[in-house]
Amino acid sequence: MSSHHIVRDDQEPALIIANGAACSQELMGQLLEWSPLVVVLDSAIERVIELGIKVDVLIGDFDRNFDADKYREKQYPIEIVHLADQNSTDLEKAFDYLIDRGIPAANVIWATGKRADHTITNITNICKYREQLKITIYDDYSRIYPLPKLFKKWYEKDTILSLIPVGEVTNIVSTNLLYPLNNETLSLGTRTGSSNTVLNDGLVHISYNTGYLLMMECHD
Amino acid sequence: MSSHHIVRDDQEPALIIANGAACSQELMGQLLEWSPLVVVLDSAIERVIELGIKVDVLIGDFDRNFDADKYREKQYPIEIVHLADQNSTDLEKAFDYLIDRGIPAANVIWATGKRADHTITNITNICKYREQLKITIYDDYSRIYPLPKLFKKWYEKDTILSLIPVGEVTNIVSTNLLYPLNNETLSLGTRTGSSNTVLNDGLVHISYNTGYLLMMECHD
Repeated sequence: MSSHHIVRDDQEPALIIANGAACSQELMGQLLEWSPLVVVLDSAIERVIELGIKVDVLIGDFDRNFDADKYREKQYPIEIVHLADQNSTDLEKAFDYLIDRGIPAANVIWATGKRADHTITNITNICKYREQLKITIYDDYSRIYPLPKLFKKWYEKDTILSLIPVGEVTNIVSTNLLYPLNNETLSLGTRTGSSNTVLNDGLVHISYNTGYLLMMECHD
Repeated sequence: MSSHHIVRDDQEPALIIANGAACSQELMGQLLEWSPLVVVLDSAIERVIELGIKVDVLIGDFDRNFDADKYREKQYPIEIVHLADQNSTDLEKAFDYLIDRGIPAANVIWATGKRADHTITNITNICKYREQLKITIYDDYSRIYPLPKLFKKWYEKDTILSLIPVGEVTNIVSTNLLYPLNNETLSLGTRTGSSNTVLNDGLVHISYNTGYLLMMECHD
């Protein structure tokens, strides 16, 4: 998989490989094919290199005695970005790095699984980048992205769609869903829109007023 | 593992086996040893029975053509609770069932992993039961429970503790943490207290005013 860099175009989504559970090789291969830039978080690089993947950027705070410099030679050319800020996670550091470079989109893998604190923080932190970076988290069961305030997309009948509010989301209106939302409020921990279903082949519209709403397209 | 029912005492936590990723046999064995009542959610029973575990209660909406009745004989005696309410998840149905029976506590496994919508819904839904049922979710990397408004517990120095707000949590005060909280607000998606660390062997105190705060004790 080391020769995946067919197109070096900053308009294509970068691929961020975080430090959670590994996904299938198939999913990783599909995403690598379209990614001009591969960004790896901290000590995940050890697992990534074992898979024969060429890493372009290594980002992290490199605590716990992790020696990033030994990868300068192994992965030449590689950019090593050491950011010690304790107020942001490694994944947020990677988002900030891409925004600084003017890259418009990122796909993220290995951001879920293993530690639950990392999983929930990674998933919910993507919301605040809604206006700056088009972020999608993938794992073997899920495709997760923040919904814009006006959303429409074509889906096949019976597709399972979960609308997960990060905090409280108001005035949600949907069309073409089995459990329709008619100007309703969803609130994490009390009422979410998990496991809704597309009624008919066609467009699903979702709009809302305030808050952060995540789309999760999941399958068993 | 079929002879784990040493004590049938409704004061001990029940064990709920949900339908996410399986945990290690070691963790499951430890929790089974203390659980007088084993409650399994929906089609997870197929995977549970393969492990030779005696199930006491099977709960679910049993949609998708799942035939619960065939387990009446295989797992005799077993209570089968069919609840079709689309406004609650199978895990919430199990919590409600335990509350109705007057059981004070539940340990939950297999509630994380696989589908991200199920993971985040299962984790955040435990908060609203804070006053009715003492719930702890376990997986191989995490121990998760809702914090009471006044919390104290003894920890070893350098233990990693993550304080995850479900929505917004106000006036948080902590003692004996590396990154102390002094009457601060945490908010999911913008500022969480992930990966804090215990300063010294001894008690950690945490208090807060409004909202739902989860403790996650996680390790790599």
